[in-house]
Amino acid sequence: MKKQTIGKQSIEFERAPHILGAASIVGKKEGEGPLGKYFDKIGEEDGLFGGKSWEEAESTLQKEAVSMALAKAGLDQQQLRLIYAGDLLAQTIASSFGILGFHTPVYGLYGACSTMGEALSLASMAVAGGYGDYVAAVTSSHFATAEKEFRFPLGYGSQRPLSATWTVTGSGACILGTEGGKARITGITTGKIVDFGFKDSLNMGACMAPAACDTIAANLVDFVRSPQDYDRIITGDLGEIGQKILFDLLKEKGFDIEKQHMDCGMEIFDKETQDTHAGGSGCGCAAATFAACILPRIQKGEWKRVLFVPTGALLSKVSYNEGRSVPGIAQAVVVEHC
Amino acid sequence: MKKQTIGKQSIEFERAPHILGAASIVGKKEGEGPLGKYFDKIGEEDGLFGGKSWEEAESTLQKEAVSMALAKAGLDQQQLRLIYAGDLLAQTIASSFGILGFHTPVYGLYGACSTMGEALSLASMAVAGGYGDYVAAVTSSHFATAEKEFRFPLGYGSQRPLSATWTVTGSGACILGTEGGKARITGITTGKIVDFGFKDSLNMGACMAPAACDTIAANLVDFVRSPQDYDRIITGDLGEIGQKILFDLLKEKGFDIEKQHMDCGMEIFDKETQDTHAGGSGCGCAAATFAACILPRIQKGEWKRVLFVPTGALLSKVSYNEGRSVPGIAQAVVVEHC
Repeated sequence: MKKQTIGKQSIEFERAPHILGAASIVGKKEGEGPLGKYFDKIGEEDGLFGGKSWEEAESTLQKEAVSMALAKAGLDQQQLRLIYAGDLLAQTIASSFGILGFHTPVYGLYGACSTMGEALSLASMAVAGGYGDYVAAVTSSHFATAEKEFRFPLGYGSQRPLSATWTVTGSGACILGTEGGKARITGITTGKIVDFGFKDSLNMGACMAPAACDTIAANLVDFVRSPQDYDRIITGDLGEIGQKILFDLLKEKGFDIEKQHMDCGMEIFDKETQDTHAGGSGCGCAAATFAACILPRIQKGEWKRVLFVPTGALLSKVSYNEGRSVPGIAQAVVVEHC
Repeated sequence: MKKQTIGKQSIEFERAPHILGAASIVGKKEGEGPLGKYFDKIGEEDGLFGGKSWEEAESTLQKEAVSMALAKAGLDQQQLRLIYAGDLLAQTIASSFGILGFHTPVYGLYGACSTMGEALSLASMAVAGGYGDYVAAVTSSHFATAEKEFRFPLGYGSQRPLSATWTVTGSGACILGTEGGKARITGITTGKIVDFGFKDSLNMGACMAPAACDTIAANLVDFVRSPQDYDRIITGDLGEIGQKILFDLLKEKGFDIEKQHMDCGMEIFDKETQDTHAGGSGCGCAAATFAACILPRIQKGEWKRVLFVPTGALLSKVSYNEGRSVPGIAQAVVVEHC
């Protein structure tokens, strides 16, 4: 057993796991956005994806994403050894009911909107450790389930401040294996929980930016890289406000990532025409964008090396109502063309 | 990279991680139960552990458990590479706020009451894979936070059916490493989500028993063992009703575990005097019982090999109110004296 730890919080895989297939499914609004043509499947106006409730719809998203990713990887579900799955809902019910039908061993995760980074990290550790030939990572979010979980009933028609993000209805899944495909995960940087004391749940970009800064800086230090060593450094859903804070915080540490930075939340909607304010968010935002738009560019070799850093705001309505702060976390994955 | 997978859903570690330290903390009621003298720390009547809310109290439980486990392992927190943490609350806030102060890279988990099995499994995979020298696994539950999260406000004084379990106020943490200590985790069996269609959230033993059966049977088949090869097969919190169902289901598969079986939920309270009905439950039940009573007997060599199988019921109040079933999951860990 060779140690693969580098620096303080990163792993460089001795045998990097490969991404064999990935798929995405999103709601109608996301399908009408700038990335619309890249998604594998787009739902109808009602957001129900054939289900009876929004929660059931979100479960369908995970089921569809994993099924499509398996098909793209040329595998059937019996070959899948493990699934790492998560979502934003209490007790991660979207995942439980979404992947129940696969009859595959599963580990449930919660890392708020950073969960796709967590799922890809743990799936990579499993494949690289010899614990499974084929392992899936999947996360989802749904605008209507998230509003119900964290904010107000949709029927209230509450006003949203400009700092608020719009939870993406969508899911993305990746199948990892020991060989094949045109992209591999060469390393990860595990995030710490970072709490700057922000308490505004409608400005999650600000709550998550310090964690994104912490993880990105740790990655650059641990791997002895500069931002230029990445073609892109892509956060999950910081949005416009979070991005500005991230740039400022990283400059204080001596890193300028303005040229490399991209944020899935800022790409997925057109803020002028789609009324989504600071951008998209949710577990499904980073996951669907990764599967639809980031991975294909790495596979083609257009980007040689990307740092993918989904970011999460660790709050619940209970912690918020009890006046607690909103700590952040960011989980980073290094994805390279091969 | 040698493959360590065996059978359909198990891993046998080439280099089994060792358990270097473990600690437990529980509430006053648990301290008054049959296992009272084994816990490291016992709280006061108010259940607040010095906090201002029950959620804050539960976070304190995790913080204390990890701190004590680190001290017992002779480590300081800077040496800890990773923490795998989870709890029962929406968005696992007990974990987020509990481990925030350690400034350690973290992966958040949700597996309902099976989470300690999941945390020990993933921590083992990390250590055995060369991803960290010292890795922690911790979970918690709290009677008052759980009642608020899943059932009714405590002030209502709702009647509880005899099939109901009593959520344990407690936390248990283990520190894993590559060598040292008198116990090691030689293998794991990852659970599948099993849904028999039960819908009674006040009879969680029945909901979880099919999953426990599935994981235990898979473990016996994958490792080519019979129940006699274990000194004990210990489930998390099936309680009396779940235990009966487990025995019946396993007999249908040709396994009789009655002589080896123990259930943390049935050990932690005295049902005659403590009015806890079917037994204890919660993420903290299996975790605290493992740290306080199971691990020490393995360390002493009284038990040579134990199958520890925390069990979880995958429901939320939303899934319950929407009429969904309560699927179960069980995560198994093989712990041996060394």
